[in-house]
Amino acid sequence: MATNKPVTNTDADAASDADPLARGIRALVERTHSPRVIGPREGLGLFRLDYDEALFQRNYAEPVLVARTGRVGEKFPLARAAGRLDVLGVDVVAACVNELIAAGAEPLFFLPSLCAGELAPAEVADVIKGIAEGCSRAGCSLLEGGGIGGSMAGGSDDGGFALSGFAVGVVERRRLLDGAHARAGDVVIGLASEGLHGQGLSLARRTLPRDAGVSPALDMPAPSGNIDEKSAHNAGETPASRDIVDELLRPTRIYVQSVLDVLGAYRVKRVVKAITNIAAGGLAGPWPRVLPAGLAVRLRRGSWDVPPIFQLIADRGQADAIEMVNTFTMGIGLVIIVAPHFAKPVMARLRRHGERCGIIGKLVKGDGGIEWT
Amino acid sequence: MATNKPVTNTDADAASDADPLARGIRALVERTHSPRVIGPREGLGLFRLDYDEALFQRNYAEPVLVARTGRVGEKFPLARAAGRLDVLGVDVVAACVNELIAAGAEPLFFLPSLCAGELAPAEVADVIKGIAEGCSRAGCSLLEGGGIGGSMAGGSDDGGFALSGFAVGVVERRRLLDGAHARAGDVVIGLASEGLHGQGLSLARRTLPRDAGVSPALDMPAPSGNIDEKSAHNAGETPASRDIVDELLRPTRIYVQSVLDVLGAYRVKRVVKAITNIAAGGLAGPWPRVLPAGLAVRLRRGSWDVPPIFQLIADRGQADAIEMVNTFTMGIGLVIIVAPHFAKPVMARLRRHGERCGIIGKLVKGDGGIEWT
Repeated sequence: MATNKPVTNTDADAASDADPLARGIRALVERTHSPRVIGPREGLGLFRLDYDEALFQRNYAEPVLVARTGRVGEKFPLARAAGRLDVLGVDVVAACVNELIAAGAEPLFFLPSLCAGELAPAEVADVIKGIAEGCSRAGCSLLEGGGIGGSMAGGSDDGGFALSGFAVGVVERRRLLDGAHARAGDVVIGLASEGLHGQGLSLARRTLPRDAGVSPALDMPAPSGNIDEKSAHNAGETPASRDIVDELLRPTRIYVQSVLDVLGAYRVKRVVKAITNIAAGGLAGPWPRVLPAGLAVRLRRGSWDVPPIFQLIADRGQADAIEMVNTFTMGIGLVIIVAPHFAKPVMARLRRHGERCGIIGKLVKGDGGIEWT
Repeated sequence: MATNKPVTNTDADAASDADPLARGIRALVERTHSPRVIGPREGLGLFRLDYDEALFQRNYAEPVLVARTGRVGEKFPLARAAGRLDVLGVDVVAACVNELIAAGAEPLFFLPSLCAGELAPAEVADVIKGIAEGCSRAGCSLLEGGGIGGSMAGGSDDGGFALSGFAVGVVERRRLLDGAHARAGDVVIGLASEGLHGQGLSLARRTLPRDAGVSPALDMPAPSGNIDEKSAHNAGETPASRDIVDELLRPTRIYVQSVLDVLGAYRVKRVVKAITNIAAGGLAGPWPRVLPAGLAVRLRRGSWDVPPIFQLIADRGQADAIEMVNTFTMGIGLVIIVAPHFAKPVMARLRRHGERCGIIGKLVKGDGGIEWT
């Protein structure tokens, strides 16, 4: 019983000096903190704005706070069985911060809300390690706001697992990305996803072998095709077989640093028209929400390598092409729409940050949907 | 199947024009919006700061964002059976904003994260109605940040229910309440709670009759004793019997407006030393976290009326006095510690907002714990 006791706030606090696990977690969390974090203050996240500083005032005349929640769960049984609960931590951060940068906002801080259920303290630590890792990748501060511990609906301590999180970012109002300046002819740049990005896990799990120990190898694509064959990201990686479970459990890629660099480089001209995170609804999902009336997106088949995991799911699950693009990323995790003239320099900048990216289509006159060519 | 389908973001959006339920919810949500809310923008909460406005600059030289998450769940089975899911909505807002004002922060906005599980759309609507009601009481804007819908861990659509939320507030850094100026002799003002405030629900449910239909009446205390016999809050209310289930399902009281009024009235002098929300750990819980070293709190027995629900739980559950104060609010939902000279005017101001309050103790030299006299 003692070893299965969930880590509550009080426990974590009381144990902070003595327990190496709690100390290790605290160190990981504090490593994410920007100088703007005030604390620690138990159960409350404190983040100083820089109103009083010249740099902030220069960057933000009319700052807008942008807030987004995310939740993970579908990967839980698989991740737990594989001892990879850290993946859920990265994923929940990614679910929030990738949406923030899609609005052009710089993530400031993240708060988790973890209902640990029956998890052992070491498992809770793994989740938090993943959250801290995700926050590091996103350059945002992991704050403690009373969100770790407790039990589920029903009041029993042996209940389920729930992990959600909240990120707050800031964007200058006139630079808030809303697609309003998108035009027919604008170029659609696709950034490669990693694994499933949390989309369609249930379909994948129903389709694919369940036992991690005997799951077959998955032939990964040779790094070729239009999505950046020369990227730094893949430089040291030999094309190899991957275990399917490994692929399902790859943490979601976080695009914050590379996209912020692009946005920072093109502040004046309207170069970046819109960004969309590929999430619920798959690759076909976000367009009506992102494009102004009278535009559609035309994607070019074969302009990027669809990772073999998706072909495998399509074959075994007998899902047709429409169901597939309505469910999965199909290998594209984030899309950036830019004025045609700037596609090359934007992609060059993204690649310097290790993104695999390429032109996958363009905007055309249409009804907000997706077309294929 | 169709009627039990959880409301997802996409559904809610597509249905927004046609579905009266969705329209009604949207109206409730928008009623909470301050002029600083930008939107609507699907899946993203946008909140303008007022850097550029003279009023904000006068109030905030060094603003600190204060963030807090909250989660509810223990009341879920009871609330669902009684058709009172709105209570959970108020509770999750209260769990966040009462912590913000305990730091002296003004709540700005709130984002829910609701895993609706198997709830019907009308039930989801009830939860959101409660959230909107809580936000109205707290004077904060309810933002949509992609947090409504989806399914639970495991990937099945018939999973559980999970409701968490996230509030962000702002406080001027030098007015951040941290108890640092508390002194022996400072006065402890208790503000009456309503119902159980979400604390100790599982103990209460194990102890008390489960069937809502036949649960016995609960004799409510006559409005007497030291906690404000003349408050506006109780003015129109005849002392009466209450159903136990009603009592368990009373929404948590939100103290934002009254406390902000007090904090606004005493900006210069250090009148309010500390505020603590009575939450996990019950009435005995928060003191070591709130008090500086070398101080303890001495509470006076009988200085407020302990609501009869707690006596009933103690009797039936055979919980001793220590277990009770370590679990339940015992009728005190929030505590304000003030310099002795200001206790009366502070209480007068609280009562004008309908708070039932009274002096329940004082600070003494000690070890951070609680003493009784």
